Amino acid sequence: MALKIHIVLKIVVACVIPTVVFSKRYLPNWESLDTRPIPSWYDKVKIGIYIHWGVFSVPSTYCGEWFWYEWKTGQCKECVEFMKNNFKPDFTYADFASQFTGEFFDPNQWADILKASGVGYTAFVAKHHEGFCNWPSKYSFNWNSMDVGPKRDLLGELSAAIRARTNIKFGVYHSLYEWFNPHYLEDVKNNYTTQNFIKKKVMPEMYELIKKYKPEYLFSDGDWMVDDFYWNATEFIAWLYNDSPVQDTVVTNDRWGKNIRCKHGGVFTCHDKYNPGYLVKSKWENAMAIDKRYYGFRRNAPLSDYLTIEELLALLAETVSCGGNILINIGITHDGLIVPIFEERLRQMGAWLDVNGEAIYSTKPWSNQNDTFTTGIWYTSKKQEFGLSVYAIIQNWPTGQTLTLGAPVTTSSTIVSLLGYPNKFSWSPASPVGGIVIEMPYIPVSMLPCQWAWVFKFQNLAN
Amino acid sequence: MALKIHIVLKIVVACVIPTVVFSKRYLPNWESLDTRPIPSWYDKVKIGIYIHWGVFSVPSTYCGEWFWYEWKTGQCKECVEFMKNNFKPDFTYADFASQFTGEFFDPNQWADILKASGVGYTAFVAKHHEGFCNWPSKYSFNWNSMDVGPKRDLLGELSAAIRARTNIKFGVYHSLYEWFNPHYLEDVKNNYTTQNFIKKKVMPEMYELIKKYKPEYLFSDGDWMVDDFYWNATEFIAWLYNDSPVQDTVVTNDRWGKNIRCKHGGVFTCHDKYNPGYLVKSKWENAMAIDKRYYGFRRNAPLSDYLTIEELLALLAETVSCGGNILINIGITHDGLIVPIFEERLRQMGAWLDVNGEAIYSTKPWSNQNDTFTTGIWYTSKKQEFGLSVYAIIQNWPTGQTLTLGAPVTTSSTIVSLLGYPNKFSWSPASPVGGIVIEMPYIPVSMLPCQWAWVFKFQNLAN
Amino acid sequence: MALKIHIVLKIVVACVIPTVVFSKRYLPNWESLDTRPIPSWYDKVKIGIYIHWGVFSVPSTYCGEWFWYEWKTGQCKECVEFMKNNFKPDFTYADFASQFTGEFFDPNQWADILKASGVGYTAFVAKHHEGFCNWPSKYSFNWNSMDVGPKRDLLGELSAAIRARTNIKFGVYHSLYEWFNPHYLEDVKNNYTTQNFIKKKVMPEMYELIKKYKPEYLFSDGDWMVDDFYWNATEFIAWLYNDSPVQDTVVTNDRWGKNIRCKHGGVFTCHDKYNPGYLVKSKWENAMAIDKRYYGFRRNAPLSDYLTIEELLALLAETVSCGGNILINIGITHDGLIVPIFEERLRQMGAWLDVNGEAIYSTKPWSNQNDTFTTGIWYTSKKQEFGLSVYAIIQNWPTGQTLTLGAPVTTSSTIVSLLGYPNKFSWSPASPVGGIVIEMPYIPVSMLPCQWAWVFKFQNLAN
Amino acid sequence: MALKIHIVLKIVVACVIPTVVFSKRYLPNWESLDTRPIPSWYDKVKIGIYIHWGVFSVPSTYCGEWFWYEWKTGQCKECVEFMKNNFKPDFTYADFASQFTGEFFDPNQWADILKASGVGYTAFVAKHHEGFCNWPSKYSFNWNSMDVGPKRDLLGELSAAIRARTNIKFGVYHSLYEWFNPHYLEDVKNNYTTQNFIKKKVMPEMYELIKKYKPEYLFSDGDWMVDDFYWNATEFIAWLYNDSPVQDTVVTNDRWGKNIRCKHGGVFTCHDKYNPGYLVKSKWENAMAIDKRYYGFRRNAPLSDYLTIEELLALLAETVSCGGNILINIGITHDGLIVPIFEERLRQMGAWLDVNGEAIYSTKPWSNQNDTFTTGIWYTSKKQEFGLSVYAIIQNWPTGQTLTLGAPVTTSSTIVSLLGYPNKFSWSPASPVGGIVIEMPYIPVSMLPCQWAWVFKFQNLAN
Repeated sequence: MALKIHIVLKIVVACVIPTVVFSKRYLPNWESLDTRPIPSWYDKVKIGIYIHWGVFSVPSTYCGEWFWYEWKTGQCKECVEFMKNNFKPDFTYADFASQFTGEFFDPNQWADILKASGVGYTAFVAKHHEGFCNWPSKYSFNWNSMDVGPKRDLLGELSAAIRARTNIKFGVYHSLYEWFNPHYLEDVKNNYTTQNFIKKKVMPEMYELIKKYKPEYLFSDGDWMVDDFYWNATEFIAWLYNDSPVQDTVVTNDRWGKNIRCKHGGVFTCHDKYNPGYLVKSKWENAMAIDKRYYGFRRNAPLSDYLTIEELLALLAETVSCGGNILINIGITHDGLIVPIFEERLRQMGAWLDVNGEAIYSTKPWSNQNDTFTTGIWYTSKKQEFGLSVYAIIQNWPTGQTLTLGAPVTTSSTIVSLLGYPNKFSWSPASPVGGIVIEMPYIPVSMLPCQWAWVFKFQNLAN
Repeated sequence: MALKIHIVLKIVVACVIPTVVFSKRYLPNWESLDTRPIPSWYDKVKIGIYIHWGVFSVPSTYCGEWFWYEWKTGQCKECVEFMKNNFKPDFTYADFASQFTGEFFDPNQWADILKASGVGYTAFVAKHHEGFCNWPSKYSFNWNSMDVGPKRDLLGELSAAIRARTNIKFGVYHSLYEWFNPHYLEDVKNNYTTQNFIKKKVMPEMYELIKKYKPEYLFSDGDWMVDDFYWNATEFIAWLYNDSPVQDTVVTNDRWGKNIRCKHGGVFTCHDKYNPGYLVKSKWENAMAIDKRYYGFRRNAPLSDYLTIEELLALLAETVSCGGNILINIGITHDGLIVPIFEERLRQMGAWLDVNGEAIYSTKPWSNQNDTFTTGIWYTSKKQEFGLSVYAIIQNWPTGQTLTLGAPVTTSSTIVSLLGYPNKFSWSPASPVGGIVIEMPYIPVSMLPCQWAWVFKFQNLAN
Repeated sequence: MALKIHIVLKIVVACVIPTVVFSKRYLPNWESLDTRPIPSWYDKVKIGIYIHWGVFSVPSTYCGEWFWYEWKTGQCKECVEFMKNNFKPDFTYADFASQFTGEFFDPNQWADILKASGVGYTAFVAKHHEGFCNWPSKYSFNWNSMDVGPKRDLLGELSAAIRARTNIKFGVYHSLYEWFNPHYLEDVKNNYTTQNFIKKKVMPEMYELIKKYKPEYLFSDGDWMVDDFYWNATEFIAWLYNDSPVQDTVVTNDRWGKNIRCKHGGVFTCHDKYNPGYLVKSKWENAMAIDKRYYGFRRNAPLSDYLTIEELLALLAETVSCGGNILINIGITHDGLIVPIFEERLRQMGAWLDVNGEAIYSTKPWSNQNDTFTTGIWYTSKKQEFGLSVYAIIQNWPTGQTLTLGAPVTTSSTIVSLLGYPNKFSWSPASPVGGIVIEMPYIPVSMLPCQWAWVFKFQNLAN
Repeated sequence: MALKIHIVLKIVVACVIPTVVFSKRYLPNWESLDTRPIPSWYDKVKIGIYIHWGVFSVPSTYCGEWFWYEWKTGQCKECVEFMKNNFKPDFTYADFASQFTGEFFDPNQWADILKASGVGYTAFVAKHHEGFCNWPSKYSFNWNSMDVGPKRDLLGELSAAIRARTNIKFGVYHSLYEWFNPHYLEDVKNNYTTQNFIKKKVMPEMYELIKKYKPEYLFSDGDWMVDDFYWNATEFIAWLYNDSPVQDTVVTNDRWGKNIRCKHGGVFTCHDKYNPGYLVKSKWENAMAIDKRYYGFRRNAPLSDYLTIEELLALLAETVSCGGNILINIGITHDGLIVPIFEERLRQMGAWLDVNGEAIYSTKPWSNQNDTFTTGIWYTSKKQEFGLSVYAIIQNWPTGQTLTLGAPVTTSSTIVSLLGYPNKFSWSPASPVGGIVIEMPYIPVSMLPCQWAWVFKFQNLAN
């Protein structure tokens, strides 16, 4: 019910004075900032691509993007062994930077792969906890991709290619925290009573980043150690919403302080791979990865560490069904490549979305998320001209001649179809009320619209 | 005279031991050598894995394993550009060797992947045209994997792991030819009237290789420039068949001179990716690769350059149907890894063989190879207790309710089944004589025994 | 108000301790700062060692320590060629840092060589125009010798060794300017109306440097582009003189702004290799180098680019005679070595000073600097117990049997001797008044006290 | 007496049929080979330059050119530590080769320095015990300076430059032995009963070397393990003397087997730095080095490891006086430079020879070698138009007014002079018979003809 009213209001406001909503100035406190609606493009596209690339792509092994920290703290025994066995004793992490070559980085090729995958936005690592900037930042002299290593503005090249060749919204990941930045370590030593790191480094850098590259998504991270006050979060977001070049369109998340996650800010990401399995009212995001263990590319990750396309589509269905967006990570090699296993997953997903995108893009969560009678089925819905359509995304094709659903997908006039398949399906009602028994005709595997995760559509319901 | 006496003595000795077949001594000419039957294990296993690894795995890009030659001759423009853009002007190919690190090379892991893939033998590159030996050869000082780069006996470690963990026959690839070996170039300059290269380098090295590692398959290559006489081929093979430690079990191929290929020697490989599409009487091999363009690993090969599992299985079926073995290549990274896309294809094939291996292993070509009525179907056969079974490997599942075959797969009492599926199929005869119309029952995709390339079995035929 | 109280408190404290002279507080303007006398140790020791070491020691060739700038601006054609011929096209200057290894750096060995050379202080490059810090500065993350390259606190190790093993005053060179620091470039773009670079980088770094390493000499440089106001010079020096841990003993120079050089500040260095050839009232310094062309070590500098010991001693004599100190530079190799040619010059100078140090250390300029009658002779003087001694340092041993000097070196009772030689010399007066004709006895070369640059002493003069 | 006759014979033969002597064919045995006179140029020039350059110039530290062996056998603890501290665990010696860059190698510059030094021949390391060829040898594929590292024919470039710019005879050093060549190790295992290494590697390579570069000096080495038979020495030398392109002019040495050194062959070098201190009848050579400890350049050798010019001249005098040639080694850096300390010694020696060469070049040992009365004096002699001149090379200038010599340098009409000095010296005879007391006039240091090691000449003796 609440949801319905909300939608109506939105439409009304938008029709009359559309710009007023955004011309309102937000105050630098959460009460005010939380009133800003998340720009609508975000909920529509549902799927983003998360891209990890940095100096960690040089060792590119145990502990992925966390290599530096885990090695230096000794928490990752394999990292310590790897360094001992393959490098001179005094090799430093910064010594890796000159080997971050990126010689095969072709942003057009990346853009084409992303386009084929069906995603609607990116969160490209602009800077991870290592502090290395993938753009020529003024605040990171000789520790950025133009001054050392690739000698290229990775972020600039990628944003340009994506904008030129696709409709994908270009967004970035940015870590507030830098493990070993001496300014940060000093603030820590001062028990966070000083903000030298924030004022000299993080804030100027973030303003630079937003002004120069105008990302429409800002995935903040590295906030979990300390409250939002230290990070200067509300001041920055107020600027982002009021005065930045992307004030109208930008989406950010909730990683702005250990007291903030899952409570305030933009999209709720809560923790990595957040995936509650039930409907969450606030817009949220499942920031997950095809590599089940790390985000940074790991050269020696075996196949078993990669999600299969079936697993990926199941997570996509579950996430969207519960009101989330899914942000799917791929790690990039030190030489700038999306390796074939990632390209394959992305193209497989794209092929699936070509058939089934209707059940994902611009959908809304339905009253039910998963089916109570048959497992492995997630629902989405979409208001259409003649009424609401409900989509049931099924992981496993029925082994028998009928498929029974417990959720109330039907009215008397419901039309049942399979996305990508021409014929309608016969059905009969099933208890509980609204449940359905679908008659499964003989569809040879060669006539199925896709290889994995099929979608039944229930049309013209509850007008 | 001395020679004769020697032979007599051998025969006496041989008479005492039981395996008289192999105690026959072959003479160093093709008439004699061609009389040796190919050891039976080879035809039974059908599928081998071809593994390219070497210094070419360092540049690991355009032109794959041919990088050195194509760069230096300027035939590969991209190679020339790649060197110009990424290396100092005087960088040499031998300079790459110290970057051939192999730090992740885990022969046990490789063995486990190969085992899971269902292959029966290997052809591991012991030495390619670059001349770099993947074992500590006495004849390649400072140009082998122990002296420079990995500092490991790659061949020794892999053979040990495979023998300890699998029943796979360990075999090697060996190039006679070395593009830039000065001894070879001198022989070329002498119009092949001298054999310095053969006598000083190739022969001692091959004896060393065989004696030390006892490979059961020797895939010879690099022979195509000149006739077999130059390569000392018949002398060497006579030793291999008569006196080598693998005399009873070793299989070799036909790449022993430009006049020999497809005519003499062991298995006919003729040319790369030889795949005639019709039955060949002599045992032959399709030495192909999952990367459709090169054998050496190319970092920047896009997904579209890799065979899909459907394509791979189609080639497997066609090859085996026509009497060939298939040797499937994977390229290894400079750091010693089988990348996930290769691991995926291998495990997919292994999963398929778990269900359908009966139609591949130990089969014989049937009277018909492919079906005349329905395309995309390849036959194999196997003599079994009660008669001959014929297997039809189909790439595309029938879109209708029947499948019609034109080949004479039936007798009156034929039992038709699908490998991996419990029930028998109804059928009726079709003209021409022996043809069949199979009734396709409703098998939901989730009940199919495999995802791609199904096998119909026709049992109890022609008793 | 609070400030006033603070000052009062200081004075009270200062009254208790004896060194009232230094407890005076300097104001941050040149009028006040210029009143501070240069701590006396500086004039006494006369000779310092200047040490250039940094990332420029990796290319270590054309244009020496200016390599980066000259290469990037294209002003040094050889630099451009060198990079083109020996590095990949996208190699950056920061890529050099990981090759700055310093594996042979032995600060004890350096200290011993310096001790043997007879110098009294150092100016070790803490940071040159490249911005690379030879200590783990908090203000130069990943662009310092602990984070990348040597992984050592070069400055800390050297200062500790010098202090433990010698009486040499440890001092540093520090460049205000950093060619390519983006904060600096921004200030330049703003026509120096902003001071972001100074406030965020230079000042914090200099405070850190002084507080942590307590250098007794601070050779400032890189000031010449802009006036002192931009550099915050007077504020910093006031702190240095009033409140720094080296407030009583530290010496600095005059390179604090393009309007300041040779006018204000501490020791006048004016420009590189400043050597006026006449008496300068203000204490000044000749900051020169054994390599006649550059300060950073150049691997391919031929012998002819190095000063001979004769030339070095001539410059030493001239400098000290005219009231200057001489700061003699050596360049260090990327692996941390003082190469033998430098060690030789330093030990030769040390051997010379063992004999002739009396004419250098703690001397004062005399009324005359060089001789008017015989060229190549420079004078120094020293007030001793019984009167003033004058020293004549001669570059060329007289070819005849007498040596005639025009300067008034004698009174009636003058004793003439040769430093390091036991016997007195006969002499007679020469016009003009005070001139002298010295009788040269037969001193075989093997009996001379030194090999080059002999010193005549005129004792007990004008009491 | 024997010596005298020998000289006479030489002159006679040379006048009548000069070529007949050399057109004689030598037999491959020492009796015959030893009859060949050493070509006369060798004795005349007296001084050669020995140049060590190779892959050992990359580690360029402890144990110099012996690094590989000493490291691998663990005999050089510092080598082991150096590798442990500065390289990854599996770094191999061959991995060093790609770092042998030679970017500053300028053979013209080398030639000019050598010319200035006054030497008459070279022994440039063509191949040391490591087996790396400094020319593109056909017998050392990928282990030579063209295939890996410098990508240049170092030997070819140097020989061309020396021949174009100087009259210096170009010669080479060549090691028979290669520590780790597997063919050699196999022969060792066979107790030297096999000669695979010699026949496949050493002999072809030496023929190639001589034919291609026509060196006029062949300093053989690496022979000491085993007798000459193994090395095929007499066969090779017979070819060298009879049929090689340098048959008339080439000089070789005695390092052709452990039973041969100091007994047979060409010049006797006996052992490194052989310097007997008395007259040796056979022509011999003192193969020494300016670095007192090793021949390969050691980056971290302190100044004290280098000979002073005084020490070098003393060794030169002693060697020539006793009938030897002196072969003075310099080590080259990995980047191709003669470092300044070596350049200085060479130019100092050249300056000395400009004055005193008369006492060295084309001289003969005299009846006496060193003086019996005054130490530190070595004699040479030369037959001149009017009689024999004797030269006394003195290390220390007399501290008194006379110099007394015990050797019989005078007749009644002897003229005594100092090379480079215009005036004659007064003298009187001293006992024993022929001894002399020279009156030393007052020569100021500035008038001495050189700075070190002066030469007295006694003319018109024994007519």
